[in-house]
Parts: sequence; structure tokens; C-alpha cells
Amino acid sequence: MSARIDLNADMGESFGPWVMGQDAALLEVVTSANIACGFHAGDPDVMAATMKTAVARGTGIGAHPGFPDLQGFGRRRMHLPPASLRALVQYQLSAAIGMARVAGGTVRHLKLHGALANMASEDEAMARTCYEAALAVDPDIIVMVLAATAQQRAVESLGCAWAGEIFADRAYNDDATLVDRSLPGAVIHDPDHAASRIVAMVQEGAIIAESGARIPAAVDTICLHGDGATALAIARATRAALEAAGIALKPFDGRR
Amino acid sequence: MSARIDLNADMGESFGPWVMGQDAALLEVVTSANIACGFHAGDPDVMAATMKTAVARGTGIGAHPGFPDLQGFGRRRMHLPPASLRALVQYQLSAAIGMARVAGGTVRHLKLHGALANMASEDEAMARTCYEAALAVDPDIIVMVLAATAQQRAVESLGCAWAGEIFADRAYNDDATLVDRSLPGAVIHDPDHAASRIVAMVQEGAIIAESGARIPAAVDTICLHGDGATALAIARATRAALEAAGIALKPFDGRR
Amino acid sequence: MSARIDLNADMGESFGPWVMGQDAALLEVVTSANIACGFHAGDPDVMAATMKTAVARGTGIGAHPGFPDLQGFGRRRMHLPPASLRALVQYQLSAAIGMARVAGGTVRHLKLHGALANMASEDEAMARTCYEAALAVDPDIIVMVLAATAQQRAVESLGCAWAGEIFADRAYNDDATLVDRSLPGAVIHDPDHAASRIVAMVQEGAIIAESGARIPAAVDTICLHGDGATALAIARATRAALEAAGIALKPFDGRR
Amino acid sequence: MSARIDLNADMGESFGPWVMGQDAALLEVVTSANIACGFHAGDPDVMAATMKTAVARGTGIGAHPGFPDLQGFGRRRMHLPPASLRALVQYQLSAAIGMARVAGGTVRHLKLHGALANMASEDEAMARTCYEAALAVDPDIIVMVLAATAQQRAVESLGCAWAGEIFADRAYNDDATLVDRSLPGAVIHDPDHAASRIVAMVQEGAIIAESGARIPAAVDTICLHGDGATALAIARATRAALEAAGIALKPFDGRR
Repeated sequence: MSARIDLNADMGESFGPWVMGQDAALLEVVTSANIACGFHAGDPDVMAATMKTAVARGTGIGAHPGFPDLQGFGRRRMHLPPASLRALVQYQLSAAIGMARVAGGTVRHLKLHGALANMASEDEAMARTCYEAALAVDPDIIVMVLAATAQQRAVESLGCAWAGEIFADRAYNDDATLVDRSLPGAVIHDPDHAASRIVAMVQEGAIIAESGARIPAAVDTICLHGDGATALAIARATRAALEAAGIALKPFDGRR
Repeated sequence: MSARIDLNADMGESFGPWVMGQDAALLEVVTSANIACGFHAGDPDVMAATMKTAVARGTGIGAHPGFPDLQGFGRRRMHLPPASLRALVQYQLSAAIGMARVAGGTVRHLKLHGALANMASEDEAMARTCYEAALAVDPDIIVMVLAATAQQRAVESLGCAWAGEIFADRAYNDDATLVDRSLPGAVIHDPDHAASRIVAMVQEGAIIAESGARIPAAVDTICLHGDGATALAIARATRAALEAAGIALKPFDGRR
Repeated sequence: MSARIDLNADMGESFGPWVMGQDAALLEVVTSANIACGFHAGDPDVMAATMKTAVARGTGIGAHPGFPDLQGFGRRRMHLPPASLRALVQYQLSAAIGMARVAGGTVRHLKLHGALANMASEDEAMARTCYEAALAVDPDIIVMVLAATAQQRAVESLGCAWAGEIFADRAYNDDATLVDRSLPGAVIHDPDHAASRIVAMVQEGAIIAESGARIPAAVDTICLHGDGATALAIARATRAALEAAGIALKPFDGRR
Repeated sequence: MSARIDLNADMGESFGPWVMGQDAALLEVVTSANIACGFHAGDPDVMAATMKTAVARGTGIGAHPGFPDLQGFGRRRMHLPPASLRALVQYQLSAAIGMARVAGGTVRHLKLHGALANMASEDEAMARTCYEAALAVDPDIIVMVLAATAQQRAVESLGCAWAGEIFADRAYNDDATLVDRSLPGAVIHDPDHAASRIVAMVQEGAIIAESGARIPAAVDTICLHGDGATALAIARATRAALEAAGIALKPFDGRR
């Protein structure tokens, strides 16, 4: 049984005059923030403001690089050669490190965004390319990976500090993949159900599939969302249930 | 009389498939490189490659931030509030710092690009905003300023490390401003003339105006260009003449 | 007394996943829509969807070109040479014309956006450059101008079809310029006040300054906004008051 | 035997200050120009200038839309939903139509660029989506397709006007696909070989594979390149050989 857990959410996804998400409300719930780096979302102004509020709140700061596709919000798959993937991750992480420093904080972790994350969760070599690139910028960076995917295999083979992530609002198949969004029940909308399921997963150190099957997994952090009333309700219910179960909420430290 | 001088040029200004400049040839001439940071020119791939060659060559590395205007190459004036200027400079400098680190090097200096530089050379408050922003990222950064402009007044009031820059190929007015490009003689095309003029300016520690007037100035680095055959010829002639005059060529150190 | 008036609002200002404004609600109020063309806001998907709804509603369609500055939403002044201004307006207007055609509609008017509009309202030559550019694409385009500014002088000298615009929610000085936003009363927040003021301006064919002074003006269309609850309330109140006063609401036709 | 043939090349691929290709030299060789539309290359200024020179020369003008990926020059595969593909093609084609009109010309054809073309040559549904989108903007547009690929199947099923294209400098497999670039002989560098091969293909109305096999094909236009000395030499040799063989060089008309 885990005595502690981290709660993370994507933040700093506004751009110019366009606001996205409810960062202020989410910052009262999470212990780690994945901050967009200006390629798929965020801009230098948004990044500066987000870093500042995350530092003020004591939230663990992460760089959240994505594909250079603002219109597609980094969710459209793009095919880049390894050298470009490396430079893409390094540039965005470097920008985040400096913006965090100016705000009085430190980038502690890296989490890939959108299609970049999806592709890396299926392709260990690609995940490894991205993570090695980040470690070349900062060897102490903690890599946040989707538990039980090619992302996790990549960090295990690299031997770097990492944290395994599961979703509060997504149903799992027996092989630890996510139930396809087109299927009923794929997305969990009931805050109480989501919260009690997560408490059980944290306590058992396992992903609990839709079938009830247990898949032992590195459950270090829970991915929460802030877009829409339901997501925020799930985030709050999850935090409350974890606290009620006596589980400490704090940023992961990457140690295994 | 200066016993030493630095030669600088803008580099890493290619973008995607589009090549600009003759970086390889220029790296054999200069002692400092101002590397574009991806907003007005450069991209993560170009930056990675440019940092690598600059490190291999032992060239002093500088971040060269500009306006977010790729089509205009950062040469079109844009009006941004101070907070946006700050974030703009900090983001680009931070990216450069990380990309240099990955290449095994260090960003030593900062030089503003294009319209951002032009506006800051006329507006001390704007220059100060940009330089304070950079110093918040790295207090040891050496700020390269256009000698005898509002840029220089800004670094003097900030008390930071800085280096004064003059142009190898531009004529000066008696008040140390540049002769307007529309006037005859504004741009120097003759390598020998450019070179001997620069040697005199370095030896006298003064800007020599078109009229022959001497304006005492901080002559720490000479700005060279690499676009076109003439520019490269001027760069080479200038270097050769300085060496022949026994002036040491090495990166500035920001001490006064 | 005008027997008719047009109500216009900016639309299609979402971008990728970022939603801006309340287009659906505004479309029930306005008779003309100024649709962003992808440079300062809007993207091809947003444009396609906005054109479709405007056509379905019978709204008069306008192209709303702006500076190529997405982060700044086209509100930051940029300095472009006339040839670039021309190409900028022509490209965006052309894109709008084709996207309207696909949706079964026609672009009837052109309105400049943000800083491009502000600069053109102060600079007749710049306004003329932009409008001539648009007329070269479509000689029948109706140019919407800020009444009693350099924009109006430009269309008058060009002799093209045009419509004069006034603001529902902004106070005017005695010289027909807008009261500076930093002054109290510059922006009108009370729907009833805004509505009755507009009815009077339409009936008198004059801008009514804060002082009560009347400035005879081409009052062909009223600019409404859709960002925030107040703006929508003002838009609805204005429409209701105009209807109650027996003034016909329909798109302008550019005839004088 | 074909009595006529068209020669086409991609043009207008400069961006801002970055020059690409040798458009002026190529315009003396080709009869059709595929003009970039500002997403993967080109900008409004470049487009305006390119349209003007193409009109002056009497060259057949084509819109050449690509993915919104400037850094990748539209050569990196992106995965977009059909509605986005439609809007992407319609926006770019519309912009081209207006820019051509201003220059006194007309867009006659459409050719997909880079990864968008490659994907459409393998995926008939995707090709059809793009072409239907273009035909909705202009039902008379002639679609240029890679002969004997899914692109050709798409236009055949649509029943629109089209022209089949073959490459002057690429070797073909027996199934009419291109020999992989990584294999020896995939790219033809010898102008005489390229030219005589093309004359034979035009005379026989067939693709001639590397093996010597003949694949009957719609040979309406030859794709030439202008990047590098070799490409231009091949372009000139091909034109000269076709003229020497008595084959008329003029833009295709889409009739079959």
C-alpha cells in the first residue's frame, strides 16, 4: 500500500487572449502541474504567469512539451525524425527551466503532451529519444510516464528517476491500455466512482481494469483534468477521498 | 589603446529547409556568435546544430532574441507591453541556455535582434526592461549593446557586465548614430576601407564619424555580417587587419 | 432620420481548441458579421463553421483581416511596408471569399481588425492602401469604416461603396474620436443608456459626444460585442430599442 | 503518341527573407507553376510576386496547398480529420485564387504538396476529400494527380477535369510506384538520360519502369525541380529534348 500519492494536471494551456482550463481552481487540488511550453499551447506570457502561481502555491513544476501544432493543440500525430524530436523536447524543456527559475522555482519533472505522448506510449524507441533528450538538459529531471506502457519501459531501460501515472477518469482494459473512447464507460463521469476507484488503485499499487482485474503498476501520480465542471468535481472528489483514506498528497520524488 | 577585441556575427538564422548566411565561413572569422532563438529565425534543429559548431570552434555563444515575427525576420517594429517584452526575452534566452548546455557550451552574452534592438537603442526604459529580464534568468550574462546608444545607458544604470559594439560596415554621424541607409556612403562596401577604419577605432577607443570626428566609445566588439560575398570579404579583411596590427582577438569578458 | 441600420459584430475569433466569444448568441442580434481570416484569430476550420452559420442565418458576411500576430490577437501595432499591407489584406480577403462561397454565401464587406484598424483610422494613406488592395480583389466590396476618421476620408477619396460605423459602448469626444479607455465613462456598461444613445444617434444621423455635442456622421452600422455578459446585454438592448423605435434592421448596401 | 505535354514545377516557396529555388530560371522552362499558398511555404508577399511573374510569363497557375507546418516544409506527415483537410485545402486554394486575380491571372489547377500529396497518393478517400474540397471552391479546377496512384483513382471516380503527372528525375518500379530514395538509381542525375527517358514516356503514353517495363499511364505533365544546378540542367535538357522531338509544350487543359 502506498502511503503517498501525487495529483497532477496540465496547466498553462491558455494562449494570447484565449483562456483554457481553470488553473486557479486546479492548483488548489493538485500537487504537480504540467506546464505547456509554447508549441502546442502556452506562450511566454502565459508561461511566466503560470510558473508564478505554481511557485506561490508550492506545486511541483513540470515541463509539458508537445508537437509544434498550435491549431491542433498538439493532438494531431506528426512524424518527426529522432534529431528533431530531441531538439523539440530540449528547446521546450530549456525554456521551461528558465521561466521557472525567474519565478523562483525549479522544473522537477517532464511529461509529454498529446499526440507526442500517445505515440511515445506505443513506441519505446521514440519515448527513449524524448527522455534521453530531456536528461541531456537536466540529468535530475523526473520523467512522468503512463504506467505500464512503452513510456515506462523506456525509463526503466534508461535507469533515470521516474514516476508512473494513471488516469482518474478513464477505464482500463485487462492489458492496462485505456478503453477506447468510443466504447460506453470509457470515460468516467461520476466523481464518487472515480474517487473510490483511485483510492483502491493507490492502496493496492495496481491498475484496476473495468473487468475488476488487478494489474500491478507504478502508481505514483494521478492525472486530473480541469476542463469542464465534471472534471473539476472528479478532481476534488479524488483529492478528498485520498485524504479521507489517510494517503499523503505530495509531489513524487522519482525514487523507486 | 585596446589590446584586444571581439568579432561577432549573427548566426543560426536558417529556418526549416531555408538556409540563411554562411555560418561555417563566418565561424572561422568571429570570436562570438549571436544565435537566433526561434522567434524571428532559427528553429530547435537549427539551434542545436549551430550551438554544436560554435562549441566545437570555441566561439563565444550569445542568445539573440527577437520579435515573434518570422515572416518579417524580426525587423518589423512591434509594440509590446513591458511584461510581454520580459517574457519574450526570458523565454528565448532560457531556450538558448539549455540548447547550449546540451551542446557542451554556455551562453555568455545576450544581444537583441532587429527591430527589438533598434527600438531599445532609442528607448532606455525598453532596453532596461529587456536586460533586467535577461539578468533575472542569468545574473552573469554579458549584455552586448550598441555603443553610445540608449542600450549602453541602460547597462550602465543597471551596473551589469556588458560589451560595447560598433559596426564594421556602417558610417557614423557625429553624434554616434548611424548614417541613414538611404544616404550615399551609409554602407561601406570596400573591405580595405572598412578594415583600416576598424583598426583605427579599436586603437583609439573611439567611434570615427564620417566627418573624421572622434567619439570616445566602448569598443569591445565589432559586428560583422555573413550575407553576401562583400560582407564576408569585409569580415575577413577586418580580422586580418586587426591581427596585423597586433590586436588580440578574443571574446569579451564584460569587465570594464 | 435613418429608416434603417445595420448591427455588426466580430465573429469567428476562436482558434483551434480555444473558444472566443458567443457567436451563436450574437448571430441572433446582428445583421452583419466580421469574420476573422486566420492571421490574428480564426483558422480554416473555424472559418468554415462560422461562414456556415452566418449563411444559415442570412447575416451579411464581412472579411475581417488583421496583422499576422496570433499571440497578440492583432492588437499590437506592427509596422509593415505598403506592399506587405496590400498582400496581407488581399490574401485574407481572398481566403474569406472562397470560404464564404463554399458555405453558399458571399463576402459583402471588409472591416480592418485591431491595431491594423487603429493605425488606419489615424493614417489615411495606410487606410487607402488597405482598401485599394481589397478593391483589387473585389471591386464591389463594401468597406466598413470608423465614421469620421481617416478611414472614412480614404473611402471618400476612393469613391468606393462604404458604410460608416459607430460604437454602441464607447463614449465620444467632441472631435468624434473615442474617449480614452483610461478615463471614467469611456466604456458604457449600462444597456439602457447605450441603447437609447444609439437610437438617438441613428435618428439624428450624428455622433453624440459625451458633452452632448452632435457631430453629423455616416451612421450606417453599429458595432456590438459579444465577449462577456454586459456586452451581450448591450447588444440585445440596442437591437430591442432600435426595433421599438421603428428603425429597420438590415445589412447596409454601401449606397450613399 | 502525345502531341503535347506540360512541364510543371513548384514555385513561390520562399518565405519572408528566406529564398528558395530558382523561380526566374524555371519560369523559362515550365508551362505550369504550382504556387505555395502560405502554409508550408510562401507568404502573402511571396505569393503576390510569384503570381505576377507567372502571369507575365503566361505560365499556367496552380494552387499548391500543404500541411500547416512551415518548419517541416509540409513534408512531415500529419494526421487531420477529413473536415480539417477540407478546410485546409479550401482556405489555401481560395487565397491563391484571389492573389492570382489581383495579378491579372487565374488559378487553373490544384496540386497537393509534400506529405499531403504522399498520403493522398496512398489513400483514395483522403485524395477524394481534398479534391472534392477544391471543386467546391471552383468546379472548373483541373486536379493534377500523380499518375497511376490513389490520386488518379480519386479524380476518375469524381469525374472532374484532371492531368496525370510523372517525374523527370525519379526511377519507377514495375507497379508505377517510385523506387525508394534509399536505393541506388532512385534519383536520376544525368540530364541526357532523364530527357530521353521522358521523351519516350511522352511518346508512348506510358511510365517506363527501371526494368524497362511499360505501364500505360496518363502522361499529361512532367514534374521538374529547380533546387540545385542538376535539377535545373535536367529541366532544361528535358524541355530541349521534347522540343527537338516535335512535342508541343503547353499547359494541360484537363480534357481526356
